[in-house]
Parts: sequence; C-alpha cells; structure tokens
Amino acid sequence: MKLLDTTLRDGNQAIRKGLGQKLDSQIDLFRQYALAASEFGMQYIEAGIPISGPRAQRIVGSIAFDHRERAETCILGFARAKQQDIDLTAKTVEPAARKGIALLTSVSDLQLKKFGIVAGKETPGKRSAMLEQFRKSVAYASAQNIDELLVYLEDSTRADIRYLMDLSAAFIEAGATIISVPDTVGHINDPEAYAEFLQELKEGTPGHETVQWSAHLHNDRGIAVANALIAAKRKLMDIVEGTINGEGERAGNLALLTYLLCTEVEGYSSYPEHARMEGMTPERLKNAEKVSALGSWALNIERSPYQPGVGEYVHRTAAGMHQDGILKEPRMFASYDPNVIGVDIRTPFVFSDQSGHKGLRAILEAKGITLSDEKLRKTYLDAYQMSLLLGGSVTDSLLEATAWEAQRNGNPAVLEVKYDELSITYAKREDRHIAPYVEIIGTLQVHGNDHPFSGRGDGPTSAFVEGIGHVLRDDFGIYIDVREWIEKAVTHDTIGRGEEEGDTEEKEKLGREAPVWGIVRMNVGDEQVDGYGHDPNATYASFKACLQALNRWCTTKQACLTSPLDSGDATTAL
Amino acid sequence: MKLLDTTLRDGNQAIRKGLGQKLDSQIDLFRQYALAASEFGMQYIEAGIPISGPRAQRIVGSIAFDHRERAETCILGFARAKQQDIDLTAKTVEPAARKGIALLTSVSDLQLKKFGIVAGKETPGKRSAMLEQFRKSVAYASAQNIDELLVYLEDSTRADIRYLMDLSAAFIEAGATIISVPDTVGHINDPEAYAEFLQELKEGTPGHETVQWSAHLHNDRGIAVANALIAAKRKLMDIVEGTINGEGERAGNLALLTYLLCTEVEGYSSYPEHARMEGMTPERLKNAEKVSALGSWALNIERSPYQPGVGEYVHRTAAGMHQDGILKEPRMFASYDPNVIGVDIRTPFVFSDQSGHKGLRAILEAKGITLSDEKLRKTYLDAYQMSLLLGGSVTDSLLEATAWEAQRNGNPAVLEVKYDELSITYAKREDRHIAPYVEIIGTLQVHGNDHPFSGRGDGPTSAFVEGIGHVLRDDFGIYIDVREWIEKAVTHDTIGRGEEEGDTEEKEKLGREAPVWGIVRMNVGDEQVDGYGHDPNATYASFKACLQALNRWCTTKQACLTSPLDSGDATTAL
Repeated sequence: MKLLDTTLRDGNQAIRKGLGQKLDSQIDLFRQYALAASEFGMQYIEAGIPISGPRAQRIVGSIAFDHRERAETCILGFARAKQQDIDLTAKTVEPAARKGIALLTSVSDLQLKKFGIVAGKETPGKRSAMLEQFRKSVAYASAQNIDELLVYLEDSTRADIRYLMDLSAAFIEAGATIISVPDTVGHINDPEAYAEFLQELKEGTPGHETVQWSAHLHNDRGIAVANALIAAKRKLMDIVEGTINGEGERAGNLALLTYLLCTEVEGYSSYPEHARMEGMTPERLKNAEKVSALGSWALNIERSPYQPGVGEYVHRTAAGMHQDGILKEPRMFASYDPNVIGVDIRTPFVFSDQSGHKGLRAILEAKGITLSDEKLRKTYLDAYQMSLLLGGSVTDSLLEATAWEAQRNGNPAVLEVKYDELSITYAKREDRHIAPYVEIIGTLQVHGNDHPFSGRGDGPTSAFVEGIGHVLRDDFGIYIDVREWIEKAVTHDTIGRGEEEGDTEEKEKLGREAPVWGIVRMNVGDEQVDGYGHDPNATYASFKACLQALNRWCTTKQACLTSPLDSGDATTAL
Repeated sequence: MKLLDTTLRDGNQAIRKGLGQKLDSQIDLFRQYALAASEFGMQYIEAGIPISGPRAQRIVGSIAFDHRERAETCILGFARAKQQDIDLTAKTVEPAARKGIALLTSVSDLQLKKFGIVAGKETPGKRSAMLEQFRKSVAYASAQNIDELLVYLEDSTRADIRYLMDLSAAFIEAGATIISVPDTVGHINDPEAYAEFLQELKEGTPGHETVQWSAHLHNDRGIAVANALIAAKRKLMDIVEGTINGEGERAGNLALLTYLLCTEVEGYSSYPEHARMEGMTPERLKNAEKVSALGSWALNIERSPYQPGVGEYVHRTAAGMHQDGILKEPRMFASYDPNVIGVDIRTPFVFSDQSGHKGLRAILEAKGITLSDEKLRKTYLDAYQMSLLLGGSVTDSLLEATAWEAQRNGNPAVLEVKYDELSITYAKREDRHIAPYVEIIGTLQVHGNDHPFSGRGDGPTSAFVEGIGHVLRDDFGIYIDVREWIEKAVTHDTIGRGEEEGDTEEKEKLGREAPVWGIVRMNVGDEQVDGYGHDPNATYASFKACLQALNRWCTTKQACLTSPLDSGDATTAL
C-alpha cells in the first residue's frame, strides 16, 4: 500500500477554532511538514491548490522545490478540470523530482448541478457531454510535464456506477495514471460497502489493471479507516489517501496515523503484505508521533486528547484498579507499546479518586519527586481529598503541590499574608445591571517585608489577586492572573471510602478540620501553575490556594522575589 | 439490536481536562442523563460502581429509584466478582423496575496477574481454579433479586479462546443472562476480526443460544464502531455497548451515536433489521443531539467540533467552491439532513478566503442581517481581507462586525478615543528577567464626555485596555478583558486573487490604504465579542479593534453607558 498525504490540501480545508492561524509562519510550517512526511515515507503529498491564490501557489512551489532531489515522494498540485488551473498547477509543481496533478472531476448527478445542469436519468445526453469535457481535460493534463496524473471522481459513492465505469475507462485511455474514488460526503455507512463498490467499479472498467486505484474517504460516519482496511485486505486498492490526524472538512478525512496503527502496530491480527505501507520500517514508524504533532501544529488544529495512538490521554489511566494492574504488569491495559510510534510516556497514571498510594508514588517518581512513606501518606490524603472534591482526576501540577506541602512541613514560605488583618468590603451597587464589587485591603509579606496592597474585583478572589498582583507587578515586575478556580466544601458526599479502607478515619478527620478547599489555576509570568488551600472560611481557602501556587512557583526560581525593582516607593505606589 | 449505555460507568472513567468536574451538580446531571437515555430508548443503562464510594452508591441508587416505574430500561450496577460488591450492588439497584448486575471476570493470562497468579499455559490448574471462583460469584449474583446478570469477560480478545468457551459455558449454567465480550484494550486492529472471534467463541460454547451476547469495544485503533457493525450484520450479537459520544478511558469506548449514524440515518447501505436499534423511531432519533449534549455536559467532557453527527463543524463548510455548490443544491456536500438527529443548522457556511459574496450574504441573513448590495460589497471586502490575514476562516462575530461597520458608515459611535493625543511611554527595566512595560495616558470619550485614563501593561494593547477598562469599571461598572489578539500587516502575500477576479483592484486598494489590521476577541461583561480595526500604525489598529468590539457590544444594549455610577468623581478616581 502506498500513502497519499493530503494534510496540506484537504486537511487545510478544515474549519479552525478561534481567530485562526498565524500566517507568518504558515509557509515555513507547511514546508517543514511536507519534508517530515516524505522522510516518513509518504509516497504522495498533495501540497495545495495553486489556483486559489499567490500564497497557495508559493506553498506548493516551495514544497516542489524542496523535493527537487527527493524522487521517492511525488508532489501533487490540485486542479479543477480547467485549462488555466492545469497550466498553473503543472508550472507550480515543475521543480519537484517527481510531480503530478490531482485533477477534479464531478461525477454524481448532484455534483453535476455545479455546472448548471441536471444530469438525471432523463437527460443522459448531459452526462455524456460532461464526460467528453472531462476527458479532454484529462488528456490536456496528461500532456503536461508530469509523472503522475491522479483523477478524482468527486462524490463517486452517490453516482451511477455505470457512468463511473464509462468515465474511468475514458480517463484511463486519456492518460490518467491513478483513479481516485472519493466518498466525498462520507456517504458510506457500512464498512464493507466501499470495498464492494470498488470491486464492482473496477471489474466493470476496461483497462482498470493498467492504473493505480486510490481510496479517498471522509469520516462523517466514523468508519473511514475501517472502510479502507477492508478494501485493502481484499486487495482492491493501491493507494490510501488521508490526512495525518484526520484533519479535514466536517468530521475530517481518513486519519493516516490510525490506518498505520491498525496495519503496522502489534494487535489481534496481522495484515497481508499488500495492505501494509510500502517501505515502512520500525525505525521510520518511531517518527509517527513527530509527523502527527507537526501536522497538527502546521494546520493549527489541536489533536484531541483522545485521538487513537497520539492523544494526550490515550496511554494513561485514572482508574485505581487499572493502576494496580499496570504496576503488576505494564501491558495489562495496553494493547501495544506506545514507543513503537514514538510516544514517550513517563507514567501511564493520572491520579483520581480511585487511585492508591502506589499509583501516586509512581506519578511523583516519574517527575523526580521521591518522598518518605510518611510524607507520601500526607501527600496522598491531600490528593485524595482533592480528587473527591473535583469529582475525578487531579492535575499533575496539584499533585506536585501536595508533595511540596508535605516537604515544606508547615515552615514559612516566601510570600505570606496576615489573613486576620485583611479588610474585606462588599459594596453593593444600586443599578441591577451593574455587578457588585469587593474591595480588599491588606499586607503581603515578601521575605518578611511588608507590602501593603488594595484590590477590587467582582469577587473576593479577584480582588485579592488584583491587590497582590499590583505588588508583584510594581515591585517585582511579575505578572499574575487567575485562570480557573473552584471552592468546595467537604461534605458527607465528598468523604469517600475509596479503595483503602484503613484511611477512612483519617480522611474524615481531615475533612472536619478543613471544611472548605480552594483550588486555583494561575498564570505566573509565562508559566501556568495550580495551587490549593483549605480553611474553615471559603474565601481564605482560595487566597491560600493562590499563595501556594505563587510560593511553589518561587521555589522553582533562583533568588525569587529577592531583587525588588523600586522597593523604595513600594508603599507609596499604592 | 439492543443498546447498553455505559456513559455513566465506563465513560466516567475518562480522563478530563483542566481542574475537573463541578461536583455539586454531578448527581443531578447523571440522573438527568439516565432519564434522557432511557427515554431515547436505551435498553440497558450501566449507572456506576456502587462499591467505589457513597457518592457513586447514591448516584446508582437515585437512578434506580428514578426508574422504579420505567421497566423498558434495565438499570445495571457494576460489581467485581466479590461477595461484598455483589451484595451492595444488588441492594443499590433494588428500587428499579428492571435491574441487573454487571459482573467483572478477568479472563486473559495478563489479567489473571491481578490476582497474583501467572496462569499461562504451564499452569492450567490456576486457570481452572479461577474459573471455579468466578463461577461461584456468578451463581451467587444470579441468586440476588435481579432481572439480568451480565458477565464481562475482561480482556477476552487477548485470552485463550478455549478457556473463554469453558468460562462462558460455566457462567451460562450458573445463571448469567448476558455474556459481554470486551475488547478491553482495543486490541482488535482489523474490523472483521471481532466478528470472526465472536463467531468462533459462540460456536464453541454449549448453551450459547440461551443467553444474549453483548459487544463491548474500545476505540484504541479507531475502528470500534466498524467492529460492531460487521458483527451486527453477521447476526452475532444481541447488544451493543458504548458511551453516547465515545467517552471513556484512553481513546474511549464505542460511540453509540456513531453506531446509530450508520444504521439509522440515510446513507449508501440499508442495514438488516437485526442490526438496527430495537424500538428506534424517526421521532425518537430527533433527540439524539440532546442526549449527546447532555452526556457531554454530565461528564464534563467537551465534544470534539469534528465529532461525526454532532460536532460543531461537521455540517458547515468554509470552502467557497463548496458554498457555491450548496447554494445550488443543499445536499451537494451533505450525505444526510442533520435535522434527523436533531441538529439544527442555521447556515452551513463559514466565511473563509475562498468564500464569495453569496456565501457571506447567506451567513448574515441567517443571523437576521440584510444588507443592500452596496453595503454587502463593502462588508465583503473587509471580511475577505481578514480571511487572508487570518489565513483561514473568519468568525461569525467578526462578520457581524463587518456588517456593523458598513451600516454605521463612518458615523461616530458611543466610545471614541483621540488617538493623536495619546501619550505612550515604553519603559525598559534593567533586570533582564523582568518584562519591559508600556504606559498609556489618554482620554476616552463616552457619549462625547471626556474620561481621562492611564494604564500599564506588558504591551500597548494591554496597557490601553487596562486604561479604558478602569474607566468602564469605575464609572460604568463594566468589566472588560482581552482574550486573544492579532496584528497583521497587509503584504503582497495577503492580497490574494480569490474566487472573484473582478475585485482584485479594489482589494489591493484597500490593502494599500490600511496596511496593518488588528483583530481582537474580548470579554465584555459576561459576553464575548470580536472586533477589528485598521491603521497605518499597528498599535492604533489594535486599539481601534478593541473600541469597535466595545461599541458593537453597546449597540446590543439598551441605554448603553448612559447611566454612569459616580461620574462626579470619574476623573479624580484615577
């Protein structure tokens, strides 16, 4: 099986989140991706649509140029069946050592409406007219200075199969070297149907054995990869088309990485040679993660954390029963070793309300934190309590915070606040369209020196953070910000029994002593850090959480907050 | 085919993003989800693991209680093969009109290591000992007051099939009513292999025809749904298990919604009756989107915008060629009408650098904005220029901004700034660890009244926003914040030709007049609003973008910024 990578063409048609893509680096990123993909062994790269504008033209041309001595990979440019498209595309891909045109023809009755004609059964003449028009384009493209001419039969799975046979035969005669059979709208809803359709089409097409057949699938029904796997097993196709992570319009294209995860990575079945990627080696396969990450970066489409093979969570577990099992046998909940595709997992665990001491120790040790049994026990209690309060898993940053607390053992930190001396004023405003606000006045101690502050916000936490934020900004040049926060009371429901019965009493005790927990995620300078705190007073719990996050950030910085900028007028600046 | 929904059990084992789940509402949300799922027609709901703690017990118990008169759906609780688990689970599901236990047995040699034994071929005695132990648990569970006893053969796809046959036969004799055959780690990498495996297993199991067989699949290889579809077509299973959107550990479980998208929604193939969901009607199917959204909400796992069927982007296109086609024929790029699963698409378009006037008009009209031809033309030029600068699609909020500009036609807005009078100071700090900052002093006009401001930030835009933010907060009680911003110069690469050749000249003119564009996304009060501006000076472009966003927000508010709070001391407050 050969792979055709259309990440940069069909993948690039995906809708993006947010404001979109940073353009400056796009050309460079696309070039980098194409080089990585050809080094990985992709036999074909469809690089873009030159006719869509000077930028696209420059991208395709640059990629062709980068491949001027790389004949293992054929660089394709996409063209509609129009002379100007074909001319420009041939010219743009010209520098590549191996080059081709991917030519679009529209073949279903619905698609023919694009040309203003309704080519239903009632008007067979229209269909033949279009066939003749497309045939001429194929012949024209074939006469260009190219090595491969791929012809897309757009929307083939909703077309009349007799008409497809006529078209394919005509295109083969006119010089096509690859016939691509797209399930353009993801109409195939049965994983065996595409193979059956391909078989019927090929059998009815004179000359079908003289060209390569390529599968182009979309994932609207969630079965794009499976469709290709079955057609591949039945030896009905020579090329599988797709995008590296399944990027593309609507639900996306076939994900090439997932195809390889089935055919190249150890599993229940072994695939026959003709279904496996030509030229793939265990060494090359180790680059899969890199190519995938680069594709995601180039297109500015984040990978889902649940994406098979490479998603952030797919080689980790939060379930305690599973963690115990994995400690006994690493493969107990893993079908394959993620290293084979270049994924490096330091620990397969995430801490949750179902995790035990062993799982926690394993996570911390993977981060280079080793604790005595006693400190691990203390750490576990905090982590466990948070997992209950959060109703699920606890972030790694919070786990580091629990270990930090156990190691600090109550000693004073760089930043302290005298909570008892805080003045907190809740101001109500009369206009109901306008939010009430809170004002806090207090003193932040930095290395024991007092820095008075005042802050205002729509709640006490934002007011507190604004206040201490002013001190940190004006006196130390550090910018802070709160991204998320949660305050949670410990109640009957959130003192669970958990896996380890013996701890119940201690957990309950902890709960009674500290009924409210605050958990925050902060930006400190360029970094993101989580913190927690507990206090009978919900408000102070959040303040403590913020201070913990800041103090923990300090411990990772040398000489943290020891060189105030203008400490002379620190107090007057407020 | 019957559906077993394990969203609240296996789905709930998924790893979550961020700080996790808000617990207060979790019990209510899980109950709501279970009710929605049973109304949708799910025949089985696995509600949780009572033994894992009082909270889980309360969830399962409440769901059982909610189903005390809903005998169409059987409520299952999950239990390990231990007496205390079985007792508690039976007691917890007791209130339901139809209830059952889902009992875990571990059957692969790897899984047996959990029990501290290595049960490889060398030690067949150990396997038989485990069989006997599990058989007793099945018999014990079967004697409880329940209607269904499902037995999971955990990790069956990596187990010895002869051993599985012995186990299944023993469990059937001991009272199991459903045998579930889990591909626990997603080991099946060939979509036909699970069906073949199931067939062999059933044929070798005496009494197999007296129970129901259930498929439990994980998506590690991206083919979970396809595996089930093929086994279903071959009539090898009675129940398909999964989570509504595919939530679950690692790459997730089989997505029930995707299964239905293949079997119940118009496509290339029609499925035989036995593969289709029992009791499903077109009317019920219209609730699919709601159940899916509720599942995502209850578990606190966002759906991917690319998720088949219900993802935010899957029924929209940004490609101009496709938009033209859709305007001629709505189904040209859609395999099915999304309304059949309850998805309501106001417009299938997203504006991009490949969109034309017609696409833009269609998007705006769907938002209730109708423009004259001349204003549409102006709007299009701005939108087109931004699509080039953003290198892709333009948000709907920005499109609304282009229409707002065209309609405003240069008239003054509520908020204005005298840009020429701004004082902008760049302060450099000596310590290289500390960011330089920018200070801006100026005057914000609100309804023509002057409000002096000053602000400081790590760049001019943040300083500007801080400054005018103080005025808006202190004088009007409005909180603002910038989420993202981009500044882009119009260059040769970003004046494209696009689809409509005629506009080239005008586009280029526009580009030359306004070489730098600023595009921002702001939080204003509780709302999010995008804005843009252009100016030869990059800094002012961003300021203008912020003001446009604020002014546009004002136009949607009655009496916006006309009732200042303490305007008396507005100037002294700074």
